[in-house]
Amino acid sequence: MSKKYEYMHKAYELAKKGVGKVSPNPLVGAVIVKEDKIIGEGYHEFYGGPHAEVNAFRSAKESVEGATMYVTLEPCSHYGKTPPCAEAIVKNKIGKVIIGMLDPNPLVAGRGVKILEENGIKVDFGYLCEELTEMNKTFLKFIQSKTPYVVMKTAMTLDGKIASKTGDSRWVSNKKSRAKVHELRNELAGIMVGVDTVIADDPMLTTRLENGNGQNPVRIVVDSKARIPLDSKILNTPEQAKTILAVTEEADLNKIKQIEAKGNQVLKVVALNDRIDLNSLMLKLGEQNIDGVLLEGGATLNFSALQSGVVDEVISFVAPKIIGGNAKSPVGGEGIELMKDAIELEDIKLQQLGNDLMLSGKIK
Amino acid sequence: MSKKYEYMHKAYELAKKGVGKVSPNPLVGAVIVKEDKIIGEGYHEFYGGPHAEVNAFRSAKESVEGATMYVTLEPCSHYGKTPPCAEAIVKNKIGKVIIGMLDPNPLVAGRGVKILEENGIKVDFGYLCEELTEMNKTFLKFIQSKTPYVVMKTAMTLDGKIASKTGDSRWVSNKKSRAKVHELRNELAGIMVGVDTVIADDPMLTTRLENGNGQNPVRIVVDSKARIPLDSKILNTPEQAKTILAVTEEADLNKIKQIEAKGNQVLKVVALNDRIDLNSLMLKLGEQNIDGVLLEGGATLNFSALQSGVVDEVISFVAPKIIGGNAKSPVGGEGIELMKDAIELEDIKLQQLGNDLMLSGKIK
Repeated sequence: MSKKYEYMHKAYELAKKGVGKVSPNPLVGAVIVKEDKIIGEGYHEFYGGPHAEVNAFRSAKESVEGATMYVTLEPCSHYGKTPPCAEAIVKNKIGKVIIGMLDPNPLVAGRGVKILEENGIKVDFGYLCEELTEMNKTFLKFIQSKTPYVVMKTAMTLDGKIASKTGDSRWVSNKKSRAKVHELRNELAGIMVGVDTVIADDPMLTTRLENGNGQNPVRIVVDSKARIPLDSKILNTPEQAKTILAVTEEADLNKIKQIEAKGNQVLKVVALNDRIDLNSLMLKLGEQNIDGVLLEGGATLNFSALQSGVVDEVISFVAPKIIGGNAKSPVGGEGIELMKDAIELEDIKLQQLGNDLMLSGKIK
Repeated sequence: MSKKYEYMHKAYELAKKGVGKVSPNPLVGAVIVKEDKIIGEGYHEFYGGPHAEVNAFRSAKESVEGATMYVTLEPCSHYGKTPPCAEAIVKNKIGKVIIGMLDPNPLVAGRGVKILEENGIKVDFGYLCEELTEMNKTFLKFIQSKTPYVVMKTAMTLDGKIASKTGDSRWVSNKKSRAKVHELRNELAGIMVGVDTVIADDPMLTTRLENGNGQNPVRIVVDSKARIPLDSKILNTPEQAKTILAVTEEADLNKIKQIEAKGNQVLKVVALNDRIDLNSLMLKLGEQNIDGVLLEGGATLNFSALQSGVVDEVISFVAPKIIGGNAKSPVGGEGIELMKDAIELEDIKLQQLGNDLMLSGKIK
């Protein structure tokens, strides 16, 4: 690894420390290097807080004049919650800025670079592009579409079952896989299930990380007719995480009032084929700054989500065990008639978690 | 890699050239090294042919006296189709023999080593044990149990389906995966399906390698009542591969005669719960020197095979595509009630074949 990659990699590692805390902002890390020595480093630590560049300046114990700054994302050029970083870089007399990826945010998009260059600062690009794009996939989708990046998570046995024939599902996946799911909950701003999952399992849908410091995602229940039991855990724990119930006009107004009275939000969404129009729902969630959603749906909701095109990525945990029998599989619904028309994934990534396998891919 | 590993690896690579041709013998390769130079090499090329050691001696262009022989398996000590290799090594005045793995064959088991040592030849062990055990897993199972090593092969989508809701299954797996299946057919002496697969697909079950030089496995059909259509391809192509129909006493004698008249073999096997007792069938196949079987069963036969304990390994192709709907999965049958009692795999190996994944594991 050349030195440049090494420094950008350091900035990348710093950026990732903000996972779960900066949404809907991007993860950004910055490193200041002078005479082949890191003299300052910082990252965007939480939403509304100082940007990575500013934290890097603050950490520097010596003059940064003429130094090189490595920053994972193009420095911002607009006044948001904080003043523009491009100007801070100029003011601090940085000699050169090496940028990981350009900011697709229409408020920045190349303007950060322009400010730097107009002020005689050299700018260089193109280190770790792939890793940085992957790291900020949620931000990138959200900033461009105003809808959340949706990750569909499934878990099954090697014979394609999510439970035994009797419905027993404890556990399909091993501990490491289940811990990984909680990391996903920590990373994504929202978690979505169908009402039947709530009726069957009464889950909390909170984040339980091994070190205990997780962020709970906003809990979103797809429930066109508001069938959710009023005593469901997720309706009665607003202090732990926000819950949004997505309903259609068919939902009973009186029940909606009761749900709201418990401190939950009810979102009315248009119907499509008697079901919630998931594209409309995603736009509404985007309006609430929910930039990412982990879909832990049942077979029917999963198929609807795939079919409506709202899913960006599928993460499938496969446990090397066989249960047999006539049992449920991860995706059902209407189904597709011909194998050649199946929904395909690309950019396949594999990870072994103990004996379990985690396969992830983007919808083609 | 030390030199010793390098030479043993060379012997291992040579051994693998015999894949599909030596059954039910083991794959063996040998390399003769003198003054850090390979002066002879050979492998067991076909069943009944000379052993690896003999071929290595034959290939040597200079005197092998005092040289070191690397051989993947303990040299044999008994008169079989050929004279014992341990004696040939003594006669050729080899100075040292480095053995990959000991031969569990009760006719050899340590005796080869004993002959060498009694004749003042140094013996060393323990290189590439894992690879060599894996390479000869079929031989090892067969020599110890007299029953074939059974590999259950399945292919499914990422939502656990082997076909669409309409039954369309062309293709679940990609070209590379399908080519790999033909390699498996080439490697294993037998291939087994249930009669329903024959009725539904009328398959040939032959080996079609990309270079065209495959060995066709013996075709075994599990068909307790002899329901197989008389015009099935596999009953009418005895010149391409042998076909064995496994039936119970319930099968019609007249039909059996017709099947035999076409040049096929009918094996009567005892029944267990109205189905063919797969353990008895495996013993009968072992008697015919079938040391390995690729099970390409449907959901019911796969579950029976797993439940009866005849399966040694599962190789599952997972295609990163989603088809949805209510469709068949790779294993069905009675099924297991609780997830904690599921049949587990270990020694999990992963291989990416294009975007497809090949997951293999041994039954725990």
